[in-house]
Amino acid sequence: MEFYDRFIPPKGFRFSGVSAGIKTRNKDLGLIFSEIPAKSASVYTTNKMAAAPIKVSIEHQKAMMPQAVIINSGNANSATGKQGLEDAWKMAEITGKKLGIDKKSVLVASTGIIGEPLPMDKIEPAINAAVHSLGVNKGYEVAEAILTTDTKTKEASVQFEIDGQLITMSGIAKGSGMIAPKMQHPQATMLAFLVTDLRVSSKVIRKALNEVTDRTFNSITVDGDTSTNDMAVLMANGTANNHKIMLGDKNEKLVVEAIELVCASLAKKIVLDGEGATKLINIKVIGAKSSYDAKKASKAIANSLLVKTAFFGQDANWGRVLNAVGYSGAEIDPRKINLTFGDITLIKNGLPAKVNKEKFAEYMLQFELEVTVDLQLGKEKSSVLTCDLSYDYVKINAEYHT
Amino acid sequence: MEFYDRFIPPKGFRFSGVSAGIKTRNKDLGLIFSEIPAKSASVYTTNKMAAAPIKVSIEHQKAMMPQAVIINSGNANSATGKQGLEDAWKMAEITGKKLGIDKKSVLVASTGIIGEPLPMDKIEPAINAAVHSLGVNKGYEVAEAILTTDTKTKEASVQFEIDGQLITMSGIAKGSGMIAPKMQHPQATMLAFLVTDLRVSSKVIRKALNEVTDRTFNSITVDGDTSTNDMAVLMANGTANNHKIMLGDKNEKLVVEAIELVCASLAKKIVLDGEGATKLINIKVIGAKSSYDAKKASKAIANSLLVKTAFFGQDANWGRVLNAVGYSGAEIDPRKINLTFGDITLIKNGLPAKVNKEKFAEYMLQFELEVTVDLQLGKEKSSVLTCDLSYDYVKINAEYHT
Repeated sequence: MEFYDRFIPPKGFRFSGVSAGIKTRNKDLGLIFSEIPAKSASVYTTNKMAAAPIKVSIEHQKAMMPQAVIINSGNANSATGKQGLEDAWKMAEITGKKLGIDKKSVLVASTGIIGEPLPMDKIEPAINAAVHSLGVNKGYEVAEAILTTDTKTKEASVQFEIDGQLITMSGIAKGSGMIAPKMQHPQATMLAFLVTDLRVSSKVIRKALNEVTDRTFNSITVDGDTSTNDMAVLMANGTANNHKIMLGDKNEKLVVEAIELVCASLAKKIVLDGEGATKLINIKVIGAKSSYDAKKASKAIANSLLVKTAFFGQDANWGRVLNAVGYSGAEIDPRKINLTFGDITLIKNGLPAKVNKEKFAEYMLQFELEVTVDLQLGKEKSSVLTCDLSYDYVKINAEYHT
Repeated sequence: MEFYDRFIPPKGFRFSGVSAGIKTRNKDLGLIFSEIPAKSASVYTTNKMAAAPIKVSIEHQKAMMPQAVIINSGNANSATGKQGLEDAWKMAEITGKKLGIDKKSVLVASTGIIGEPLPMDKIEPAINAAVHSLGVNKGYEVAEAILTTDTKTKEASVQFEIDGQLITMSGIAKGSGMIAPKMQHPQATMLAFLVTDLRVSSKVIRKALNEVTDRTFNSITVDGDTSTNDMAVLMANGTANNHKIMLGDKNEKLVVEAIELVCASLAKKIVLDGEGATKLINIKVIGAKSSYDAKKASKAIANSLLVKTAFFGQDANWGRVLNAVGYSGAEIDPRKINLTFGDITLIKNGLPAKVNKEKFAEYMLQFELEVTVDLQLGKEKSSVLTCDLSYDYVKINAEYHT
């Protein structure tokens, strides 16, 4: 399986991104179109204030096989009540009409400021422009159009063969702040769009996306804030002409692997582009009694402001990691805990180890770091990718909006 | 009842603060001494990595009526294993010996860096100095000696009469970062020391401190990190010669009120001195179906980095408040939520209200702000005092230690 750090268009899809003027500059409206209806799988935010586009997409996806996704950035269409729902329906309706497909085969996604009505006067003509400029090689335009505080587009693709047919699975994502996925079928927390020409049953990709989401998007955090708008959608239009992959097919693992490679890469890119991030930190908790304990502990460390600022300061203040484990709610025995940063042992069976301070200080200067907590109570584990907390996080979020 | 923003010594107590050299500058060792054994009440951290001094204080408080508290700053004696316990016992032992009291009547508290052994060679002579310099009017010295990243001492007192006798109830506290109390009897999260000359039963003050802790220290947050070391202790030595207040006494309410005035003032001073804080924000959730829901929602808002940075930016980005309510786990009905900032209604029954933008922008410039979320689902409520998240929070925490 070949992996690429860019978006390669699968067969039978077209894309475009245009400037609707919702944001003061840059593209802010993206369109993904499949020439034929696609099998689909989705995960949606668990936030109880779920935005209008989330509700509309869930409804439409239940009603029919999707053929298009219309996405705007700059305005989340969240906390906008009945008008918000009408606007989201309208986005689907206009898109469907211009594309000559049923409005219910259009999914809708929005990201941006919460609590302001969508500027439909700007969006309507922009949808028209987006439909007219659809092209096979314009995936990057969608990747651009969905960005908010992101500084980079996030793209990833894999290619592999089944039955001698080349299959392409590609994805784009956005996310920089308000990132702390809490996923459970059929809910999730990211703006990610995956497209593939694979012939596959809905069951296979739904099962795969849920599994993979838990290990990828579900295991990253930037600021602990779970958004009202995030969703991940996978559309498979079957144009690759492989035999249809059903549950139990020997190629099912390959499909999971492909989805996982793309999602893992997009998830990592989101953390790398975390607002103000200067470090990427992989927090691993192993030896937990239960998977619940492992997750509680890894998330507490990954979201601790004190841990995140210590990494920004390149400071060897590992006590903050232990502190977070202590208040995480996970079952622990302080006398059994091992703590390592990279391959440097800091705590062995609950006691501070002899540490080469120079080597440790040098390690803290790395860009990519790994923290491992071994609770020594069982076999469950969990890992979370997080970033540090810098001045720029504060700057970006204090200055956003006004 | 008279309230004072400073520490007034109750009868029968003496205090001192000295420089042991644990911190590079300023006082770092404090001693509180009661001339006779005192009735006591305590709440200790719920962090499962509870530090050695916490364990020793719990043990000693069970064993006998306390007569002294020895406190050091600069080193938390946390994650220090068996040696840490021995050092904490040793602190009590030396203090008891110098004061001529049983070592078990000495409580121990530490705050500072986690994971480094206590410098006992510095602490031992400093305890000697502290005992020699004890004085009635040196409460402020203890208030100074317990500070870490705090920029100000935190003191509060009340005076009132029972049976014509003047009663003084006074407290000092420290706390600036790693502040997110999670209290439950017999556990808590703050370094706060209250002393009073009131004659009262242990039962009365234990009940009162638990109640009050929940409404005061339990309802503040700076960064969501619950420390391994925090504790609040109240010592009542009975030298005021009022009739002994037992459970059910008509003066019991007065006692609760006195403790609450002191704790509420100390708690507010902690948030005001929150690391890098430029704003004080009172988050109120009302109309919740259960007290659990109310707390979940208020804490989620109060700890949201996006909410806290928006306040730092004096930005009217109230969508972030709704977002936090949505992911808090509290039961909500998005169509029923009301949201106000001060007396400005932003959301009424789930829908954005017409807002005077100038008036709103002006409100956001205030130093003290109030956010009220009415879930309109029941009668339970919760409030949390929080502060904004500024560049200086990052600066203080990235640069601490090294």
